[in-house]
Amino acid sequence: MAERLIYLPLGGAGEIGMNAYVYGYGQPGKERLILVDLGVTFGDMEGSPGIDLIMPDITWLEQNRHRLEAIFVTHGHEDHIGAIGHLWGRLDAPIYARRFTGTLVRLKMEEYGLPAEAVNIVAPRPEVTQVGPFSVQYVPISHSIPESSALIIDTPAGRIVHTGDFKTDVTPVLGDAFDPVGLSEIAAEGDGVKVLACDSTNIFSTHPGRSEAVLATPILEWVMAQPNMVVATTFASNVARLKTLADAARASGRKVCLLGRAMRRMVGVAFDSGVLKDFPDTIGPEEAAKLPRNKVLLLVTGSQGERRAASAQLSRGRYLGLSLKEGDSFLFSSKTIPGNEKSVGRIMNALSEAGVEVYDADDGLYHVSGHANRPDIEAVHDLLKPRIVIPMHGEHLHLREHMLLARAKGMTSEIVTNGKMLDLTGDRPKVVDHVETGRLYLDGNQLIGSMDGVVRDRIRLALNGHAMVSVIVDEDDKVLPDAWVELMGLPDKTRAGGDLARHVESELSEFLERADARTVRDDGKMDEAIRKITRQVAMEEIGKKPEVTVIISRLMAD
Amino acid sequence: MAERLIYLPLGGAGEIGMNAYVYGYGQPGKERLILVDLGVTFGDMEGSPGIDLIMPDITWLEQNRHRLEAIFVTHGHEDHIGAIGHLWGRLDAPIYARRFTGTLVRLKMEEYGLPAEAVNIVAPRPEVTQVGPFSVQYVPISHSIPESSALIIDTPAGRIVHTGDFKTDVTPVLGDAFDPVGLSEIAAEGDGVKVLACDSTNIFSTHPGRSEAVLATPILEWVMAQPNMVVATTFASNVARLKTLADAARASGRKVCLLGRAMRRMVGVAFDSGVLKDFPDTIGPEEAAKLPRNKVLLLVTGSQGERRAASAQLSRGRYLGLSLKEGDSFLFSSKTIPGNEKSVGRIMNALSEAGVEVYDADDGLYHVSGHANRPDIEAVHDLLKPRIVIPMHGEHLHLREHMLLARAKGMTSEIVTNGKMLDLTGDRPKVVDHVETGRLYLDGNQLIGSMDGVVRDRIRLALNGHAMVSVIVDEDDKVLPDAWVELMGLPDKTRAGGDLARHVESELSEFLERADARTVRDDGKMDEAIRKITRQVAMEEIGKKPEVTVIISRLMAD
Repeated sequence: MAERLIYLPLGGAGEIGMNAYVYGYGQPGKERLILVDLGVTFGDMEGSPGIDLIMPDITWLEQNRHRLEAIFVTHGHEDHIGAIGHLWGRLDAPIYARRFTGTLVRLKMEEYGLPAEAVNIVAPRPEVTQVGPFSVQYVPISHSIPESSALIIDTPAGRIVHTGDFKTDVTPVLGDAFDPVGLSEIAAEGDGVKVLACDSTNIFSTHPGRSEAVLATPILEWVMAQPNMVVATTFASNVARLKTLADAARASGRKVCLLGRAMRRMVGVAFDSGVLKDFPDTIGPEEAAKLPRNKVLLLVTGSQGERRAASAQLSRGRYLGLSLKEGDSFLFSSKTIPGNEKSVGRIMNALSEAGVEVYDADDGLYHVSGHANRPDIEAVHDLLKPRIVIPMHGEHLHLREHMLLARAKGMTSEIVTNGKMLDLTGDRPKVVDHVETGRLYLDGNQLIGSMDGVVRDRIRLALNGHAMVSVIVDEDDKVLPDAWVELMGLPDKTRAGGDLARHVESELSEFLERADARTVRDDGKMDEAIRKITRQVAMEEIGKKPEVTVIISRLMAD
Repeated sequence: MAERLIYLPLGGAGEIGMNAYVYGYGQPGKERLILVDLGVTFGDMEGSPGIDLIMPDITWLEQNRHRLEAIFVTHGHEDHIGAIGHLWGRLDAPIYARRFTGTLVRLKMEEYGLPAEAVNIVAPRPEVTQVGPFSVQYVPISHSIPESSALIIDTPAGRIVHTGDFKTDVTPVLGDAFDPVGLSEIAAEGDGVKVLACDSTNIFSTHPGRSEAVLATPILEWVMAQPNMVVATTFASNVARLKTLADAARASGRKVCLLGRAMRRMVGVAFDSGVLKDFPDTIGPEEAAKLPRNKVLLLVTGSQGERRAASAQLSRGRYLGLSLKEGDSFLFSSKTIPGNEKSVGRIMNALSEAGVEVYDADDGLYHVSGHANRPDIEAVHDLLKPRIVIPMHGEHLHLREHMLLARAKGMTSEIVTNGKMLDLTGDRPKVVDHVETGRLYLDGNQLIGSMDGVVRDRIRLALNGHAMVSVIVDEDDKVLPDAWVELMGLPDKTRAGGDLARHVESELSEFLERADARTVRDDGKMDEAIRKITRQVAMEEIGKKPEVTVIISRLMAD
């Protein structure tokens, strides 16, 4: 059978988060595979209460692990590496990454007791990593974390460029600049670029993206204008931003104090891996507390309103001996990710109540995006001249808009969402398979399927409350007269002001006294009847039907 | 004792939503009172799962209802009238409103079996409503609903202007235009304006607000450019927007079909009360389904992503015989309220999957805000020339910014959040009391306090899952050997792949067999020990500690 080139997203296509893209080459069903990135997304109370992390269901890949040559990591953001600690054991394939990214991945491997030596550090193009039928090169590209890379994936069926996350920043403050000449060289080699798998995050932003460098002056001016303590928060992984903020502190005579584990770790890794070379000396919180307030800048975690991060702790009062006061200034040098508005707002309002001046980046002075805007995406199209564009890293809306753009420019383009296997061998890509995909939830220390019902039950409990009924049936199949009802997450009063649990009990007792022997002997019938009565009584009294759990205990003759 | 003028927000000050502002005049503790507005805010899964509506805790006002002269309603938005049906019975005071607003309030009263005749319809200034020491006039002002009004509240201690929600729109398409000359007349009468209680929602928007009228051309051009079915959603209460959209339909040869109960009701009330005079004839969904797709415009509810509204239903497939297809167009002529981003995004992506072109108002072409921006607020300051500005209708951040603005302009200003009683008698307002306030949750048909623990328990159930343990103690205080464990919202497997519930049972049985008589006789000790073991075992096996409910049944000798 003829060999083919396939593309199969397991995560990240039709959503922003948990990126995991498979490429394969070989005879159908026997393709040798590589995986690009293995990230997470974050749970929330609305869709996944109690779940910290969500990752792609890689069952298909696990079943085909004997065909998996390697995992290539484009950059160190959690939505690209966050699942490695949890899922690598199921795949057991060598990992490739550049130094900074690889250091972050190694830390993750160690954290989960996995072999850090599985992570191979590679240098950028022209270094080539050969795995099976794939020759892979790392192409430095700019993003909001150091060392983000596009991948050139050369296959017998042609050249793929997988952008990873990128922006077209030629003055990124720190790390790799966008290199248009380099990209046009990639397009000029051999048969050029057959397939471009391309970041779609900012496809709806119609103005050209702005460089990280434009923030230096506004941030410096802002810091210099503040009379007292200055606090700034951004993603810890945005090392360029940390540097801009720290440089502004130094230039205005302030000492920098890093607060939050991620902040300290990221600066450490950036130093050790050589991407960060010049950063002011930092001080600890004790020292910061002793200095005059106008001599300190705190760089803190928690720009997305995370409850346990430094920003939230500071907003609630004292944190590591530091507290904010009337006249202090707090800068969110960040964009609030959709869904986090309320958490971020809560912190901003708490700071406001303490008299702190809160500044956000809404006017564009103190934050730039890490993703390519529409004209930037077009520039990359034009430089790489791919014959086929596959939009990735986006919700369906983004993928669709990117597809329409690519088609309007005369390129072939398809929307490929998670689980669709695309055959890229010929000139016209076609979907050749649908693979079962989905989401895995990390719950405590277990990975559960999103469709297992566990989380659905939790949502029901949260919406409806829980009534528990315990009934005892004696040795002679006689129900003992008292049903016992416990309520949780429900109002405890009846309409008339009585006790709701006792009222349900008495209604149940009435039924149980009259229940015939056939019903009493049948757990299923008992359960159904008790559930129905409980819900009915609750509906009458409080206007809602709770979840009901019935426990029937049958006494045995000694 | 000298008489005094007081201001006491019970809701809406320190939050956007559930507006309820009390003014009083008289001897301290004996002031005669009026209430301005009585609104709701909406619950969400994160903070209040299972709760549909949240309203201010008016306990203080209920205790002082003998002093309450009247309730004045500024306009018909739910955050200003939504609690009337639920709370009016506790206050039993006459309600005043203009015709359109009053009609909406009367419908609410009827819906809850309350006397619609308690609602008095008043005309705008110069009509004066005299209640106790207050002379109240309605001042037409523009907003995103017809007939929004500011109130002039004249008291022996001076004139208050309470803006309600407003924008400074001189061409509002429909309803009252902003009237700067009228405002300056209000300032010129008598001693002028002592206190301005003023909307703060858009204090952070630095450009002048835009008129509703600027949307007509872009919306018409947009509708005309669409090849197939057109759907548009906005708040049903934004009757001016409905008219703009419907006029665009008519001008482009499309019939208008209203989908969603609120949409039909609002148009009806607008007609009946005379604020809407010219609106195209509408057709029903059956007729819409029969017409060519390019001859129809659906005006639908659900611009905020509400699950049961028409937008959501259409995004999920067929609704009332209508379904959307490749090439149809869907316009969100609305701003997404913070917190609703994910719900709105879900609908947009579902539409995108169906091939529908989705348009939002991000570029400003298809939506304008209903609130005054910072320069507009300044214009109102300048026209009314108040001596004291009280920022209201805003989160703490907004109130603080508005206060700083007012002070910078030389006026006296204080942040007054819910529950603070401000004495406004003299030149310098001062907080003279703190009143217990809070939130009431509508749960099913009951109103429960937000701090009652019911919702806190639900959140715990959702985050942690629920383990129920049933234990039976016999007539001789001997524990029957089998504990029964039921789990809900928890993974069901142990680390080793066994059944978690059975595993907890066997661990509990071990304890129960060894438990001494004193423990067994003591419900409290049993409960504590069983809870502890259950949580410990779960922690070991699944890495999380569930909520635990223990039911101990004690058999009695016959």
